Amino acid sequence: MYRSHHNGALRLANVNQEVALSGWVQKIRDKGFMIWIDLRDRYGITQLVLDAERTDKALLEKAKNLGREFVVQVKGKVIERVSKNDKIPTGDIEVLVSELIVLNKSKLPPFTIEDNTDGGDELRMQYRYLDIRRKPVRENLIFRSKVTMEVRNYLSKEGFIDVETPYLIKSTPEGARDFVVPSRMNEGQFYALPQSPQTFKQLLMVGGMDKYFQIVKCFRDEDLRADRQPEFTQIDCEMAFVEQEDILNAFEGLTRHLLKEIKGVKVDKFPRMTYKEAVETYGTDKPDIRFDMKFGELNDLAQNKGFRVFDSVELVVGIAVPGCGHYSRKQTDKLIDFVKRPQVGANGLVWVKYNEDGSFKSSVDKFYSQEDLAQWAERLHAKKGDLLLILAGDADKTRIQLGVLRMHLAETLGLRNPQEFAPLWVVDFPLLEWDEDTKRYHAMHHPFTAPKPEDMHLLDSEPGKVRANAYDMVLNGNEIGGGSIRIFDKETQSRMFDLLGFTKEEAQAQFGFLMNAFEYGAPPHGGLAFGLDRLVAILGGQETIRDFIAFPKNNSGRDVMIDAPASISKEQLEELNLVVTLPKKDK
Amino acid sequence: MYRSHHNGALRLANVNQEVALSGWVQKIRDKGFMIWIDLRDRYGITQLVLDAERTDKALLEKAKNLGREFVVQVKGKVIERVSKNDKIPTGDIEVLVSELIVLNKSKLPPFTIEDNTDGGDELRMQYRYLDIRRKPVRENLIFRSKVTMEVRNYLSKEGFIDVETPYLIKSTPEGARDFVVPSRMNEGQFYALPQSPQTFKQLLMVGGMDKYFQIVKCFRDEDLRADRQPEFTQIDCEMAFVEQEDILNAFEGLTRHLLKEIKGVKVDKFPRMTYKEAVETYGTDKPDIRFDMKFGELNDLAQNKGFRVFDSVELVVGIAVPGCGHYSRKQTDKLIDFVKRPQVGANGLVWVKYNEDGSFKSSVDKFYSQEDLAQWAERLHAKKGDLLLILAGDADKTRIQLGVLRMHLAETLGLRNPQEFAPLWVVDFPLLEWDEDTKRYHAMHHPFTAPKPEDMHLLDSEPGKVRANAYDMVLNGNEIGGGSIRIFDKETQSRMFDLLGFTKEEAQAQFGFLMNAFEYGAPPHGGLAFGLDRLVAILGGQETIRDFIAFPKNNSGRDVMIDAPASISKEQLEELNLVVTLPKKDK
Repeated sequence: MYRSHHNGALRLANVNQEVALSGWVQKIRDKGFMIWIDLRDRYGITQLVLDAERTDKALLEKAKNLGREFVVQVKGKVIERVSKNDKIPTGDIEVLVSELIVLNKSKLPPFTIEDNTDGGDELRMQYRYLDIRRKPVRENLIFRSKVTMEVRNYLSKEGFIDVETPYLIKSTPEGARDFVVPSRMNEGQFYALPQSPQTFKQLLMVGGMDKYFQIVKCFRDEDLRADRQPEFTQIDCEMAFVEQEDILNAFEGLTRHLLKEIKGVKVDKFPRMTYKEAVETYGTDKPDIRFDMKFGELNDLAQNKGFRVFDSVELVVGIAVPGCGHYSRKQTDKLIDFVKRPQVGANGLVWVKYNEDGSFKSSVDKFYSQEDLAQWAERLHAKKGDLLLILAGDADKTRIQLGVLRMHLAETLGLRNPQEFAPLWVVDFPLLEWDEDTKRYHAMHHPFTAPKPEDMHLLDSEPGKVRANAYDMVLNGNEIGGGSIRIFDKETQSRMFDLLGFTKEEAQAQFGFLMNAFEYGAPPHGGLAFGLDRLVAILGGQETIRDFIAFPKNNSGRDVMIDAPASISKEQLEELNLVVTLPKKDK
Repeated sequence: MYRSHHNGALRLANVNQEVALSGWVQKIRDKGFMIWIDLRDRYGITQLVLDAERTDKALLEKAKNLGREFVVQVKGKVIERVSKNDKIPTGDIEVLVSELIVLNKSKLPPFTIEDNTDGGDELRMQYRYLDIRRKPVRENLIFRSKVTMEVRNYLSKEGFIDVETPYLIKSTPEGARDFVVPSRMNEGQFYALPQSPQTFKQLLMVGGMDKYFQIVKCFRDEDLRADRQPEFTQIDCEMAFVEQEDILNAFEGLTRHLLKEIKGVKVDKFPRMTYKEAVETYGTDKPDIRFDMKFGELNDLAQNKGFRVFDSVELVVGIAVPGCGHYSRKQTDKLIDFVKRPQVGANGLVWVKYNEDGSFKSSVDKFYSQEDLAQWAERLHAKKGDLLLILAGDADKTRIQLGVLRMHLAETLGLRNPQEFAPLWVVDFPLLEWDEDTKRYHAMHHPFTAPKPEDMHLLDSEPGKVRANAYDMVLNGNEIGGGSIRIFDKETQSRMFDLLGFTKEEAQAQFGFLMNAFEYGAPPHGGLAFGLDRLVAILGGQETIRDFIAFPKNNSGRDVMIDAPASISKEQLEELNLVVTLPKKDK
């Protein structure tokens, strides 16, 4: 029995009790005749006290030799503090130590174990076990555990069955790259780690499980962009005998439950927006609707007025930035520089100041009258004192650029309330997207997504125009999940693989098991997956997922703490019938 | 909206309601003028009825063309049945069909979708999605989901934090073989899939998480014995600032909770037995204590009486088989044949019948008097009418043989009550076991297990005698879990690696991160892992784990449904800098 209480437990009511505590030495204040020690564990901090008057001399000496992060066990009596600390729940008491056992020593930690540490990212990752001792990281992990329990309990209560799908499956190199696992027992063959349990959850629906969920690791061997992980966690769900509406309702329920239980936020409305509307109004398929600044298209108002730049383009589109009509030349120039950055890629930016007196001042006054600009302002729902910003060019690219500018302004102007949660369904995604590099269609969600029945007739003639029964849930400008109604008959599935450029043989070799299953009474079904890492980070009010993962990998896919990946032995390679070739020189 | 109710929902109270149902055609009884259809889903079966009098002719015709496992949607009115079926909850009603939509057809299934199917194992695995439609398999998976929810809720309530540990880690070829994962981004290097999250959960303790749990997939590339899977699931736990007693108490609590909630069985006692006692009393470290037949050692009574076979051996040991004193020669011969089978490996078996009149008849009457045999009977706690069975030979081997015989008799005589759950802790396992093949010590549990402090002095002189703070939970003769108090200081851990034959460099390269962590204030800690697949099977009253796994692999580690593992493309291999060599001819 190392302890009678945790370090967050003791209160005034415990005064005079003899207690045993264990934990880490957070801090020592040594006044010579008197020592205070902050003893820390997961549950809190308790102040220990030893002094020349009440403490045995040898014991006092022992306490003086403690160092930061030493692990100790103490026994002693709870006493009331003279000067109380109302910042911690145990701040009314301290423990007068009568016995002290050093359970383990500690070298000086490479960074401070404080809420704000002096350790850089790489160092914190290398000593992640020390980083986890810091309250913010620890609380993030505890928060994640709380979220997953809420998810599981909600879905279980709703009749979803938690089914584990296999991790050693077959490689289907569509979309991202698979991680593969050589099989020793099946020479020369490989398993793959799942990018998602997609086909298995569909087979569970064919198998009559009706409602399935799983919180499950998924794997993608991608070149890692910032804040992506090669292994990540999904809340994965599937339902049979459902239409899109049933699924949206089910997961509005889950999201509403989480926001209420975890954040104490009540959200009633889950607005819906088509993909087309989202892109045309916000320049992105994951708009942050916590603030306005909707796009207004100005082609009819701005073209053919003599301004060549606008006349020659596909789209002229703008936003009204609230209350920024007073911007100086320097400030508007900064915005122009921003959109011209290669990451954004615009050629320029037209600005119009809507003055408080109702007049306009713009960078294109030469071409447009006050009446023209007033029409623009009206189109953009601008008010006096606003700043109108207009981009022009190729429609798709210009919308994306304006979307980026919109988010940049929201950040600069603090328009996003971190306490607000604004979920949104984006629906009616295109089924396919054209890839210029490979000159073929890719599935926008994945090859199992069902086309909208009313667009089926376009599948041969104009496949790019076919919309899918696919939907994303967007929360505060982040895609937290997505899903679709699935194809559930062999013919459509086979046609889909044709469209995606599979030969019949390839389709059969990779997905034959699924198409065969569709021939034995597959029910209509659909589902959805939430990205847990991202969801937890957003609910936790943070931008990066890394500190919600206990042992994350860096941008090269390495675990710098355990130093993985690493070489394996010759014997292991031989058993697997593998030879590692030297990397090619030109790489 | 495919349905207004599930197929298990409708009762007499619903009579006269218009309902919509969806599901699979389980059975059609076509009487010509009248058709009954059993419509099935996860929730139950509802009887549909159509007849010439009340049903539109085209509709009746359509129904006649349905086949088994067709997926249909029907609308109709709930009516009271004339002849009720009290075997199913919906047996009081049927639905008079007014509308029928075939959602999907089905080819004739390769086996019957019934509780007792005509499908063989291989076929059932190949069409697992059809197998899952069968009630016993479906109910097993639902049962598993229920068990995991209970585990999670119990442990969460007890303050355990669910933390996900990584799946892409480093290969540490100690114990079983690792599955490895080539890294594309780190050329020539490999990740490994975890055999367990052992080191990570220990690092979480070093990190102050205090109480951790996870239900997690683990991976072992072993030659598969029957009823083993290359990927399996563990309930994994770890606690800090604990002694063995704290851990045993925590997991008695969990097991008690599960037995109560899942099985409605109240278990108070969790007896404890040392490894030594278990082996000496039952010939195994996982004794089934639902029945008696404890071993009695007879060396002092049976040796030096002229029976050479006994005189020359290390151990003479027997059991009393209740009520089998009447066995015929044929029956005792069968037992002798049993122990002589190569799988058991005994040279022979001595029997003594304890007759109802108090006399004895034995196969060694030539050497032993009635008084001698009476002493044996007393030692084995035999009663009149029992059969005494005695084996002799090398102590370790003979105990194992007698243990196998004991279980064989329990099976034959039906001594194991399947409704009874008898958990047991086996404690004080040896730290090390000697491996004759490699001529070195192996860790009996794993290299992180702490030696008992009182045995530390034997670590250099007689390492084989050192006992560990290691324990297994045994339930009805199955090891359902095991764990230990861990080493938490660098010096002992390093010494342990020495004992196991690691060079300093190997130990540092593979486990340096853990030993380094121990230098920064590691707390005393320990833990335990339950095998979920086995636990669920035992709670479900079944012997094999395979039907509690949605998509199991066969004994060659293959998923015959998706046909994995499989070859991967040349491009994939090239990206991974790998070449597959031809299997060696002599393999």
